[in-house]
Formats: sequence, structure tokens, C-alpha cells
Amino acid sequence: MGKIVKQASLVIIGDEILSGRTEDKNLAYLAKWLGKLGISLSEVRVVLDDEGAIIGALNSLRKKYDYVFTTGGIGPTHDDITTECVAKAFGVEAKVDDDALEKMKEFLDGKELTEPLLKMLRIPVGGELIYSPVTKAPGYKIGNVFVMAGIPKIMQGMLEGMYDYLEAGDVVKSRSYDIMVGESFFAEELTLIQEQFSNVSVGSYPFSRDGVYGATIVLRSSNDSDLNSCERLVLELISKF
Amino acid sequence: MGKIVKQASLVIIGDEILSGRTEDKNLAYLAKWLGKLGISLSEVRVVLDDEGAIIGALNSLRKKYDYVFTTGGIGPTHDDITTECVAKAFGVEAKVDDDALEKMKEFLDGKELTEPLLKMLRIPVGGELIYSPVTKAPGYKIGNVFVMAGIPKIMQGMLEGMYDYLEAGDVVKSRSYDIMVGESFFAEELTLIQEQFSNVSVGSYPFSRDGVYGATIVLRSSNDSDLNSCERLVLELISKF
Repeated sequence: MGKIVKQASLVIIGDEILSGRTEDKNLAYLAKWLGKLGISLSEVRVVLDDEGAIIGALNSLRKKYDYVFTTGGIGPTHDDITTECVAKAFGVEAKVDDDALEKMKEFLDGKELTEPLLKMLRIPVGGELIYSPVTKAPGYKIGNVFVMAGIPKIMQGMLEGMYDYLEAGDVVKSRSYDIMVGESFFAEELTLIQEQFSNVSVGSYPFSRDGVYGATIVLRSSNDSDLNSCERLVLELISKF
Repeated sequence: MGKIVKQASLVIIGDEILSGRTEDKNLAYLAKWLGKLGISLSEVRVVLDDEGAIIGALNSLRKKYDYVFTTGGIGPTHDDITTECVAKAFGVEAKVDDDALEKMKEFLDGKELTEPLLKMLRIPVGGELIYSPVTKAPGYKIGNVFVMAGIPKIMQGMLEGMYDYLEAGDVVKSRSYDIMVGESFFAEELTLIQEQFSNVSVGSYPFSRDGVYGATIVLRSSNDSDLNSCERLVLELISKF
């Protein structure tokens, strides 16, 4: 069965996601990025820019999973409260980080270092800075929590800096096949296939395209031989329709 | 301050969302739909097709919020376990519903009623059926939990059937303005504006478009007069850049 796969979770922080104004793009990106490392994204919570909600989610998830990622709320405005919440969750203070300050001054090259800029350099004590190629304000790691910006481009840059802190597992390979018939026509046979392969996760994800119902059958496993055997049975099933 | 706004939460159920294979479209749709009713979407959890995870999220959220919506996992295949989990969360059995069965038989018009179709007619005892215009397999309401399909088109149809069960609040109006300068340039002034209006939520959501950083300032309130006064100050702020 290989190594035990590490499990990760994500806290998406921001009123704008819960109001429907902004569609989150970070979940899918992080899921795929972790998948390539053999780390499974097992739970996601979307919470308001609210201290109780953020601290509650952080404390619940960092006990439950190997890694917790957060996106959003580390900017310079009053509604960016993630860092203060992370600090409170870990029972430490947040302070302007010396290294971050030096890098920012270099970047500003004589321009004014304003309060909002200073706010972005505050890091919970004990946190390790993670710079992004696209911004001078860093993300950071504290304990098993990885704190990132919400803007997808910046988040993706910070994520690359977190790579070295993560323990990779066996990579789960997935194969998927569309079947152009409603799920109820093949559900029983698919159940029988799943029952034969405990090493393979067999999922069926229905869709409707231009009024036609179908489903994508997805096989996921880190065991090549079982994956191949299971695939043969699924292709046989699909060929019947 | 008007009526107390009801708070809702959403459980998105499905491995395919957490693997990044499928991008969820239901969160944003539900958020906007509820917003028009004056109901606030306050928390979202995305969980695997796993009994413990689903029941855990359901039981935690149905105590905490006025309404809990779920999407996904009510289809006919072996990985559709939402209904059994809802039943367990409420401590009741799930049974094939007589009304749902009758409607399905009518629809099938003599065609075979297979096991997978029957599975979709199972409803936790005490649940009230909610039909969708696009499918003969219903969603349902039990307690304060509203169970819907995951396919957006079907979910949206079911949601309309849930309208009558929801208590509307004061509608929160929102106005938004783009400011084409980085947040750190206006963060302090925006904080001062927020401090003057406790009735208005002032959010700032940064973006980068073609390499240019800016932010959308969003004002949300159910109090028209405060919203107007706050808007004037924000427009004044924007005009400085």
C-alpha cells in the first residue's frame, strides 16, 4: 500500500467568497498541486473575515490534519485580520519581522514606509517567512499552518516557496472516462467493480451537457496493477452503452 | 437595524471538488440567491464522500446556523451516500418515499424501476420532498437541513422549491467601486471611513489585472441612508488617485 498519504486542509478566508461576489480559484489549484505531491486535500472551510470564525477553523483543522493552508486576509486594509487570528490561535504575538522589513525597505528604495505596508510585515512570533516572486510582503509557515495571500497569482507564487516544508506521499494516479448515459443505467455494475478493488477509489460524477445526461467515471489509486485491472472492467462496462 | 438576518451554511459533498477535478459552481449561486432573500451565507465546508466527514459537518452546522444546505451525493451510484448520512445525523431511517415512488413510476411509464432508481427515492423519515423541474428524483428538507443535487442545473431547480421554507430578512444592499492603486495607498483612510459607519460593512478586495494592482471596495448595508453617506466618502477617497 506504500506510504501513508499526508492529509491537508484549506481555510478560505473572506466575506467576498461567501457573498458570491468572488469565485474562489485557489481550492482547485491547491488540490491539484498537492495531488502531484501525493498529499490529499481532505477538507475545506470557507469562513467570514471574523475573528471567532477564523480562529475556530484554524484550531479545529490544525489538530485534525497534517497541514493546514489558508488563503486571504493578509493585506494592508482593516478587514485583513488573518495574521492576528493565526497569532491568537497559536497563543503568540504578531510583530513586524526584521527580515521582511529589510526586504521591503530595499524594495521601496527611499519611498515612504507607511503603516499599511508595515501591517503586511507583521508575522506571528515563531513563523518562518515564505516570499513570493510577485510581492515583497511574505506569506509564512507557523507550526503546520501555511498562510498565503488570496489573489491567485500571489498565492501560487507563495505555494512554491512552501514545497520544501511538505512531506510527499505516494502519488495517486487518476484516470477518467465519460459514459454518455444516466448513472442509474450502470450504477449496479459499477458497484460490483468497486467491490473487487479495495485499492482503487471508483467515483462517478454525473453531468448534463446540452440536455444530455452522462457521467465521468474516475479511478484513483497509487497501485498501477490494480488500476490497470480496474480500468479494463470499466472500459468493458462503457462499451455496453 | 431591522430584522435579525438569518444565517445559512453550505456543505459541499464530493471527492471530485477536493481533488480539483470539478470546480464548484453552487457556492456562488447559492450565496447570491440567499442574499436576495436577506439571508447571509456564513460558512461553507467542503467534505469528502465519507460518512464521518459528512455527519460531522452536518451535526456541527445544523446547531450553529438557521439553515444548512447540502449539495452532492444524492445520485444512484455507490459513492452517493449523502442521504444515509443525513438520516444517521438525525437518528432516523432512510426509506423509499411513497410519493416519490409514484411520481417516478408515472415518469417511467412502464419502463423498469431499477435498484439505482429506487436508491434515489430513499428519503430520511420525516423529510419533506422538494421536486426539481429537471429531474424526477427529489431533493428534500429535514429539520433545518436542505438536501440538493450537485449538478448545478438540478441544484438550482431544487433551490426554487425551497423558497417557501425560508424566512427572509432585510435585504443587504451592496455597492462596489474599483480603485486602481494598491491597497496600502488607501488602507488608513478606508479604516477611518469604516470606523464612522458601524451599520455598513466596508470591504476591500485586491486584484491584479494585466500586472496592475487595484482593489474593489465593497459597501454592504441594509440601511440606505448610512450606505449613501458612506458611499460619498468612498467616492471622495477614490477621486484622490
